[in-house]
Amino acid sequence: MTFRIDIVSLLPEIMTSPFSSSILKRAQKKGLVEVHMHDLRNFGEGKHKQVDDYAFGGGAGMVMLANPIFECIENLKSQRDYDAVIYTTPDGDRFNQKLANKLSLKKNIIILCGHYKGIDQRVRDALITHEISIGDYVLSGGELAATVISDALIRLVPGVLNDSASALTDSFQDDLLAPPIYTRPAELRGMKVPDVLLSGDSKKIDAWKSEQAMKNTKSRRPDLL
Amino acid sequence: MTFRIDIVSLLPEIMTSPFSSSILKRAQKKGLVEVHMHDLRNFGEGKHKQVDDYAFGGGAGMVMLANPIFECIENLKSQRDYDAVIYTTPDGDRFNQKLANKLSLKKNIIILCGHYKGIDQRVRDALITHEISIGDYVLSGGELAATVISDALIRLVPGVLNDSASALTDSFQDDLLAPPIYTRPAELRGMKVPDVLLSGDSKKIDAWKSEQAMKNTKSRRPDLL
Repeated sequence: MTFRIDIVSLLPEIMTSPFSSSILKRAQKKGLVEVHMHDLRNFGEGKHKQVDDYAFGGGAGMVMLANPIFECIENLKSQRDYDAVIYTTPDGDRFNQKLANKLSLKKNIIILCGHYKGIDQRVRDALITHEISIGDYVLSGGELAATVISDALIRLVPGVLNDSASALTDSFQDDLLAPPIYTRPAELRGMKVPDVLLSGDSKKIDAWKSEQAMKNTKSRRPDLL
Repeated sequence: MTFRIDIVSLLPEIMTSPFSSSILKRAQKKGLVEVHMHDLRNFGEGKHKQVDDYAFGGGAGMVMLANPIFECIENLKSQRDYDAVIYTTPDGDRFNQKLANKLSLKKNIIILCGHYKGIDQRVRDALITHEISIGDYVLSGGELAATVISDALIRLVPGVLNDSASALTDSFQDDLLAPPIYTRPAELRGMKVPDVLLSGDSKKIDAWKSEQAMKNTKSRRPDLL
């Protein structure tokens, strides 16, 4: 089964390099994931292919027209069933690892990237199943948010990571932050690796890691406990 | 004054397209912002330019070697003063609009992208001034996080947005989510724009927008109030 993501955007060119490098590239090459970009400009209105207009009621910033989005997404939906139509927006539900785990089990998803002041509310009312924010900050468009969401999902698709055990010990998978990690040399610029990690005593090492993970979480993110 | 960002990464090619499109491209073209990518591989050890190794104490996943990072960042610091050396990591402080506003007032910043299981803790202890997480989820590397942070900062640099009034009414700038927005046509597929927005009564419109912003925030993000 292939996990398919369709990304609908006014500026798909922003997303070229992340999807053609590293893990996201390999996931597609292995046939585990398909990513398709759709340029909303192709569904623009009139001979100027208009895709935005001023907001009713005034106010700064342009609003993405509803109709090109309806046409693009309805065209996709006529070809296959979609499990989720996601809109990336700072006022959406906050994206987190639990939601990433859940969405990575879907088969076909659409991600619509907001731009300018956002999209006409009627698109949100009629088409969108998930409104997602990647964090409490404003970006110049939804393209980076769509890329972040895609990356978080794709690395969870079975077979994408060579070392799937590594994903299980990442931050958040057990609601704890990760413990500190060290690699060689044992001493660098006067700074030494904690003795316990060099002891070879795996029981002691595991205890230290759990203790450090708990300590990190308590001091930095007590809300996770 | 030019706002300068130096990004230190094992995979700078991931970030090519976002920095050469749209607003980030124009900001650099206008001379308002300089972005420099540094490939850590150039500072790798030995003839294989090694940049990672196994973790002391065992465990899945590779750890980025400290020494190439020290060499790269010390080389940058010898050329100019930096106001912040940021490390992107899921266990860092959460990035938000307040932090974006604050960091956008700096002059020179370095962003170090984590990869694999992360970096040797001694880099964090000795070099990093800000550990930042863009959200509670795990990405395949810190490159997307660095791009997100850069985008959020760059759009706040004076002159970057054509319509700076637009940025002031974005979500989070007043701790409220944005109200719904609509553009033409006034009726689409049976769905009408709220009458008040077509009334031309700017006092009523402003009142409606404030009310909707408050309503959105109360129902979706009461924690912001």
